[in-house]
Amino acid sequence: MIKKTLIFSLLLWNACLLNSAEIEQYTVFELELKGPSEGNPFKEVQLSAEFTLMNRTLFCEGFYDGNGIYKIRFMPDEPGKWTYLTKSNNKSLDSKKGSFICIPHSPSNHGYVKVRNTFDFGYADGTPFYPVGTTCYAWVHQPEELVKQTLETLSKTAFNKIRMTVMPKNYDVYINNEPPFYPFEGSKEKGWDFFRPNPAFFRNFEQKIIELQKLGIEADVILFHPYDFGKWNLDKMNTEEAIFYLRYLIARIASYRNVWWSMANEYDIMRKSDEEWEKYFRVIQTYDPYGHLCSIHNGMGWYNHSKPWITHLSIQTAYLQDIQDWRELYRKPVIIDECVYEGNIPNDWGNLTPEEMMNRFWIAYCRGGYCTHGETYIHPENILWWSKGGTLYGKSPERIAFLHRIMTEAPAEGMYPLHNEWNKETYLIKDREYYLYYYGNSQQAKARIFLPKDVKFRLQVIDAWNMTITPVEGEFSGRVEIPLPGRPYIAVRARAVKSQ
Amino acid sequence: MIKKTLIFSLLLWNACLLNSAEIEQYTVFELELKGPSEGNPFKEVQLSAEFTLMNRTLFCEGFYDGNGIYKIRFMPDEPGKWTYLTKSNNKSLDSKKGSFICIPHSPSNHGYVKVRNTFDFGYADGTPFYPVGTTCYAWVHQPEELVKQTLETLSKTAFNKIRMTVMPKNYDVYINNEPPFYPFEGSKEKGWDFFRPNPAFFRNFEQKIIELQKLGIEADVILFHPYDFGKWNLDKMNTEEAIFYLRYLIARIASYRNVWWSMANEYDIMRKSDEEWEKYFRVIQTYDPYGHLCSIHNGMGWYNHSKPWITHLSIQTAYLQDIQDWRELYRKPVIIDECVYEGNIPNDWGNLTPEEMMNRFWIAYCRGGYCTHGETYIHPENILWWSKGGTLYGKSPERIAFLHRIMTEAPAEGMYPLHNEWNKETYLIKDREYYLYYYGNSQQAKARIFLPKDVKFRLQVIDAWNMTITPVEGEFSGRVEIPLPGRPYIAVRARAVKSQ
Repeated sequence: MIKKTLIFSLLLWNACLLNSAEIEQYTVFELELKGPSEGNPFKEVQLSAEFTLMNRTLFCEGFYDGNGIYKIRFMPDEPGKWTYLTKSNNKSLDSKKGSFICIPHSPSNHGYVKVRNTFDFGYADGTPFYPVGTTCYAWVHQPEELVKQTLETLSKTAFNKIRMTVMPKNYDVYINNEPPFYPFEGSKEKGWDFFRPNPAFFRNFEQKIIELQKLGIEADVILFHPYDFGKWNLDKMNTEEAIFYLRYLIARIASYRNVWWSMANEYDIMRKSDEEWEKYFRVIQTYDPYGHLCSIHNGMGWYNHSKPWITHLSIQTAYLQDIQDWRELYRKPVIIDECVYEGNIPNDWGNLTPEEMMNRFWIAYCRGGYCTHGETYIHPENILWWSKGGTLYGKSPERIAFLHRIMTEAPAEGMYPLHNEWNKETYLIKDREYYLYYYGNSQQAKARIFLPKDVKFRLQVIDAWNMTITPVEGEFSGRVEIPLPGRPYIAVRARAVKSQ
Repeated sequence: MIKKTLIFSLLLWNACLLNSAEIEQYTVFELELKGPSEGNPFKEVQLSAEFTLMNRTLFCEGFYDGNGIYKIRFMPDEPGKWTYLTKSNNKSLDSKKGSFICIPHSPSNHGYVKVRNTFDFGYADGTPFYPVGTTCYAWVHQPEELVKQTLETLSKTAFNKIRMTVMPKNYDVYINNEPPFYPFEGSKEKGWDFFRPNPAFFRNFEQKIIELQKLGIEADVILFHPYDFGKWNLDKMNTEEAIFYLRYLIARIASYRNVWWSMANEYDIMRKSDEEWEKYFRVIQTYDPYGHLCSIHNGMGWYNHSKPWITHLSIQTAYLQDIQDWRELYRKPVIIDECVYEGNIPNDWGNLTPEEMMNRFWIAYCRGGYCTHGETYIHPENILWWSKGGTLYGKSPERIAFLHRIMTEAPAEGMYPLHNEWNKETYLIKDREYYLYYYGNSQQAKARIFLPKDVKFRLQVIDAWNMTITPVEGEFSGRVEIPLPGRPYIAVRARAVKSQ
């Protein structure tokens, strides 16, 4: 550590002498270049750069931003003096050299999120990240007023991840508005030129990612989805077009630290072959220099999550009892990204009680996974959070925030869900140190728990719904029975009394 | 029908002339014989009879009832003049001939229950049987006062099936009392002579079956169970002893029409091999002349229910979403004989809310199966219904009775659970005639249902918890949206308006 700091100090000193730009670690260095605007610069002009820090070089594609402007965005992940060298098939963009100084991240910037300890998540700087996500698929495609409201609402919650689509959405009576921008030149009627992205569309999209970043929220960016249903035919790209779109998007947004890739929502409804999806995953593997988290979300199908490009499971299911099995099978984190939503619409995926929405978060967590929220209350103007954002009306978000607090208070290392072969209850454990028993919608009047006989524990009864934590008087070891309130959504937390 | 009645009348007339005994169809004809009492008559004396009605002969074993008394019990399943001929290795019991007249069953006696239409149940006379069971494993092994209370409690419920063990039970703090009778001569200390059954024990047991029969309750008789835990060692029979026990029990009780065979509770905990179980099943197949319903109940394991001796699935699970798959896989009825119990004890199988207990009955039914109740509320004297019977304290039994009423009001033929590939909701349907949508613990404010466009339906909103049925004004076809109360446990029933 001392050595690294020393090297960095030397580099920094060197940098100051050279008067290079300073870029904070895990933020975006943007190189802007002028180039040709004739023809189709999106397609015809190739631009990339190599960014080098000492013995390490990262390859990064640039993109055309319209009006003869080309950009290369890069997120340095280590402090020090980075140099770069551009490559292009256009002379005016080729062989540009430069450097900048990456300074260490500020305390509030922990970097991008990656897998931590096989089953969990953590920021690049080592800080644990406990995902409590929500879902606003097409919030970026709403009027600016509504977008602002969404961000304001989010700022008051504990949600730290949001599932959102790149493309606009058309679904049932609930969402069918035209987006403020279209992603490509053309129109539904005349057809789209998928090789001519609309920079205004993508600027809007990436601006929303930046807004989320300010709120500490990870953008789980859904690259493809099946909810077009002939309204725009934006889901009708062929393979070449899809790959072009992915590369353009990656060039624009991969450098934002809060980006996650969700290859598709309900991928199986799109009826692409596994081979087709693999081509797309290969694009991400090739062009994302940072190895952002990457998943694919199922409808009725089931993806082979053992594939190496899948960093974590992003599952749709209403049944959570298999999470431990999936952990063991795939050795990856599991997020139940749709367990259906709190709300009261008639659709079978949109009418959970707030109790059940919260309950599923607790169950997923205590089984060693994570869960994602969504809200679908009937609204006179069909502004449902799940698709459009706006305001939250439900009662689960504050309970989910309470659970997030419980997560942050657990040991960051060594936690695992107890293998309970009867699979009726859910315990999250760190041996001899921390035991979290969650009783779901059961109503036992007593908890009977088994603690190590030679370690003393303090116990608390947690009411997940009423968000209270009540200490149990005394210290406990071995087999313990304590009274419970005899109503649903109760947990017991046992924490070892630390030796002094 | 006329022909049958005619033949029967002739036979009856013939019988009257001969002055034979009259036995109601599906009741017990008992032949009592005197024979030797020295040695071990249970083992050494073989006794059976063939009962013949015209061209049909049924083989039936007799049993030694102590004090030199031998009995053969037979349940005639067709009206007419039955003749019999005994066989024995003891001359005083051999070659006894006789006859009796079987008269048609009375209106309240529907015969034994068997599988109806692949997935359902019906009495032998064709009346549908919709199982709504409960569980009192060791109620027959309780003091007479408590047994009476159990029967009185049962008489006030809609429960029409009860899971009960032949052997006494020892489990946790909840049940460990000595039974009023032991099934064999001997003692725990001296060991049991498994070849010397105690007739008093079995008389007591069969008397309870008769009491249940009077209440219209099927006895789901559990032949083996693992809850002895060294208290009596009654679970320590070897193969020969177990087969002897089974034959003795079958000879005594198979002729009671309300008997079902449940080979074992949590069979997998008993750690017998599949081959061992198959030997036992073969005993039932060989010695039960009536082909009573026969199942085996799992713990954590899973029996291959496709075996031909399994008439229906008797499943333990807390997860009901696979019922349709099991139906399709095994082509047999499915009963969730333990989905855990209503109560408030700390054990993870004993603290369902009454709402959830009722909910599981509805879900099982709407997925094309059936469910079984149990109750485990903490009791000062540890008299928990699930093991000892007594009094019911819970709130689910009357809701289960309400559901039973709904079952009886559905068409008896042609019902099936809708194949819903998303598997989130549960519908039970008879095409163009009857649609039952159950929304579980969801809270939708509207139901959106799809009925045939060319058939008119009347709709009712059913509140499963509050046990109300509210008609919706008007007649409906095609896509329908109706308001719902927006709280859990609501169903919608659509019934075609019958043409006049």
